Amino acid sequence: MFKQIMKKKLLPMAVISSLVVGGIGTTTVSQVEASTHKNNQSEIKNVIFMVGDGMGPAYTTMLRYMNDNPETKMMEPTAFDEYLVGMQSTYSWDPYFDGGEGDVKENIPDSAATATSMASGIKTYNGAIGLDLDQEEHKTILEEAKEQGKATGLVSTSQINHATPAAFGAHDASRNNYNAIADDYFDETIDGEHKVDVMLGGGTSYFEREDRNLVEAFQEDGYDYATTKEEMLASDNDQLLGLFAPKGMDKAIDRGEDSPSLSEMTTTALDKVSEDKDGFFLMVEGSQIDWAGHDNDVVAAMSEMREFEKAFQEAIEFAKKDKETIVVTTADHSTGGIAIGRGGDYVFNPEVIDAAERTPDYMAAQIADGADVEQVLNDYSGLNLTEKEIQSVQEAAQPVNGTIDETAVDDAIENIYNVRSGTGWTTGGHTGVDVNVYAYGPQKGEFSGLNENSETGQKLFELLKADRKGPQSHKDNDHKGKDRNHNK
Amino acid sequence: MFKQIMKKKLLPMAVISSLVVGGIGTTTVSQVEASTHKNNQSEIKNVIFMVGDGMGPAYTTMLRYMNDNPETKMMEPTAFDEYLVGMQSTYSWDPYFDGGEGDVKENIPDSAATATSMASGIKTYNGAIGLDLDQEEHKTILEEAKEQGKATGLVSTSQINHATPAAFGAHDASRNNYNAIADDYFDETIDGEHKVDVMLGGGTSYFEREDRNLVEAFQEDGYDYATTKEEMLASDNDQLLGLFAPKGMDKAIDRGEDSPSLSEMTTTALDKVSEDKDGFFLMVEGSQIDWAGHDNDVVAAMSEMREFEKAFQEAIEFAKKDKETIVVTTADHSTGGIAIGRGGDYVFNPEVIDAAERTPDYMAAQIADGADVEQVLNDYSGLNLTEKEIQSVQEAAQPVNGTIDETAVDDAIENIYNVRSGTGWTTGGHTGVDVNVYAYGPQKGEFSGLNENSETGQKLFELLKADRKGPQSHKDNDHKGKDRNHNK
Repeated sequence: MFKQIMKKKLLPMAVISSLVVGGIGTTTVSQVEASTHKNNQSEIKNVIFMVGDGMGPAYTTMLRYMNDNPETKMMEPTAFDEYLVGMQSTYSWDPYFDGGEGDVKENIPDSAATATSMASGIKTYNGAIGLDLDQEEHKTILEEAKEQGKATGLVSTSQINHATPAAFGAHDASRNNYNAIADDYFDETIDGEHKVDVMLGGGTSYFEREDRNLVEAFQEDGYDYATTKEEMLASDNDQLLGLFAPKGMDKAIDRGEDSPSLSEMTTTALDKVSEDKDGFFLMVEGSQIDWAGHDNDVVAAMSEMREFEKAFQEAIEFAKKDKETIVVTTADHSTGGIAIGRGGDYVFNPEVIDAAERTPDYMAAQIADGADVEQVLNDYSGLNLTEKEIQSVQEAAQPVNGTIDETAVDDAIENIYNVRSGTGWTTGGHTGVDVNVYAYGPQKGEFSGLNENSETGQKLFELLKADRKGPQSHKDNDHKGKDRNHNK
Repeated sequence: MFKQIMKKKLLPMAVISSLVVGGIGTTTVSQVEASTHKNNQSEIKNVIFMVGDGMGPAYTTMLRYMNDNPETKMMEPTAFDEYLVGMQSTYSWDPYFDGGEGDVKENIPDSAATATSMASGIKTYNGAIGLDLDQEEHKTILEEAKEQGKATGLVSTSQINHATPAAFGAHDASRNNYNAIADDYFDETIDGEHKVDVMLGGGTSYFEREDRNLVEAFQEDGYDYATTKEEMLASDNDQLLGLFAPKGMDKAIDRGEDSPSLSEMTTTALDKVSEDKDGFFLMVEGSQIDWAGHDNDVVAAMSEMREFEKAFQEAIEFAKKDKETIVVTTADHSTGGIAIGRGGDYVFNPEVIDAAERTPDYMAAQIADGADVEQVLNDYSGLNLTEKEIQSVQEAAQPVNGTIDETAVDDAIENIYNVRSGTGWTTGGHTGVDVNVYAYGPQKGEFSGLNENSETGQKLFELLKADRKGPQSHKDNDHKGKDRNHNK
């Protein structure tokens, strides 16, 4: 169905530049170049790029409502607030991709297209990992950093080969080719080295497979391997593969003590990549803000936002000490149509969300496993529930043909938190709203105003003074299919 | 219930400054002062402050989807896009106001509180017009401009004494005291002059009353009076009262040719106030973006956004020529929990919205008046409707006890546009999300980053180098009641 790319080549800079014609940004590429040139005195050695997956504007504002201390009149700020510099568009070029018969032209983007825009500075189709509309590969900012001899890292709470990290370290026609993406991390080398020095997240099921054991392969090439927080912290190697779950990691408030937090993974990665005298590129993703949004689960969403906020604080703290590091933090798109307000009321109750000791997902799984509804809600909901609320969960938990519909139970519990807190949702998918951009460090001004998400990626290349004309040594991928999977 | 303010005084600057302690902005007042001082070379003579009421981030992004030409891959920008400088918070201090028994503490703001924040640089309770939590009056930026001898103007598509314009030109315990607010425009004088030189919007029912005729009173004091576009354009007086509807004006796409557009009102106001050698302050509101949001009517919302965009372009054009004018454009809050995406789909269809020739409100009124459902939909919907869609409106139009429920008909028609376009909503009220801030002109950088909405107001005062310590001559208002009315 799709042409196969046998000859790997990167588009020359001239072509890349032409892609921004008609863009919304206030800054043209030539202005960026001029500006970058002007600010040469403040060289950037290290880049920390952070993505709150699905973290649209209402998520960060809601986090501020969560942070509010009612004893003070002003709302306490989030860690992000003082670093806001602008926003970016999120739409992809999916409507311009020939996905074959039956392909829906989507003008609301997915995480693969948006991550490719930020990683490679191009717009592409939904589902694409590091490829353009013609399925030609484009160099990613992580690959550029590695070519410059810098250390590189990917940190996520999803499987580490999920769409967002994948778009920085792999090239594939479809985000769903998880095994091929994991293979890319090992097989695609730059100057004889693996591209990614530190990989921390979930994903054992893709790295230890019947057909191939990438864990052993990385270990043979000198990487440490960790599956627990303890093992991760014990590593004194500058190359580390840490996989803490078969696929995605548990949500922060559900996570066991054996598993690291996103901020622990971030500081571990920083410790390692910052040892490289040539500098580093590190991508950190708060992956499951998006998953919570797909689920319309405000408890999980705020749990993940708090986790991402802490990781952000670690990155800022590092950059403040280091002075040669830029931290750029944004979202790829927004998820769920989340709103601080529902049903006509002018009240939002963060304390309802704060009360939960586990996510609705966790509670629903217990109930589906046979635990008593009231007992589970009593143990974990943190709320003094009404008869009617308990009943709504009990009804959802009625077995049909001997099986409890776990999703229905999950929805019923989520509904209690949504209604009580005043959280609205419009979709189980993504929405098209622009997203916030935060930046700290030298040349942070490059990211101010409104930019295309592809311009964000282009600016990262400019900051590293990248020569994007060089070819790149990759294995030949077999780019097949636009087999998309939006929800997780 | 509330103490009455007999002695009018403005809070000293020191108190105002202390209000921002704990704020979220990256810029403190002292930094603003230093910065303002530094940039003295670019003096600001004129201020155009524009408010898209209810225009949260999803509205401006949706407008870009509306502007998109599918023949080009990049989305065509909105007129706002290149002027994005930051965002602002919107929450009020309503939870800290003693509204008496039964008062709901609202932490999602209304338009009165938010407009007061921007007009006077303070946080206050929902419903307050130019008063703080203690119901003390605070000088507004419009009043400051008038004290400096500048010309002043208010332009809106709501009644001109509605919450947003009211908070710039009046002081009242409740936004709902429409008559008292209209009276303020006449009775509260500064140096013997009426505060507002140009007032353009709706509101004849509040200005020509049985108990008082403010129209005649303004005319006696030398104002021109207009009730049609023709009369408005014919005025060569520098003081003009133009009232084009009993309350709010019709939505842009429903409006007759007799009524001016928001951009025509804006240019008319600019023509007049710009003749003052001392400069001017002009507030322009796209009032009914919010009303459309309350109604969950995406057709009306985009009609109003396009109207506001055109007015914005007029303001920018003026400022570009003038070079001593700053244009600051923002929203007071977001309305409706609008989202570009609903029901799991990744497709938004602006052409569905574009097809409508009248708002659902307009169509529903025709049907309630006895017009045939199919005929009305055929005449105005612009869509090739399915049997099921027509039936949904017909069912809503079934008379109950001889009366057609116009709201039900309206909802049924709106639902067709929402479902077909992929527009989601979560509430008939407001939501708490931060809103975008756009700025053009000298010292636009003061508004960059994330600010409290009250800081936005404070910065307007700083730009005019305002001495906020002076007293102000007002009539004694009788500040009673917190009688709020969110929806229109």
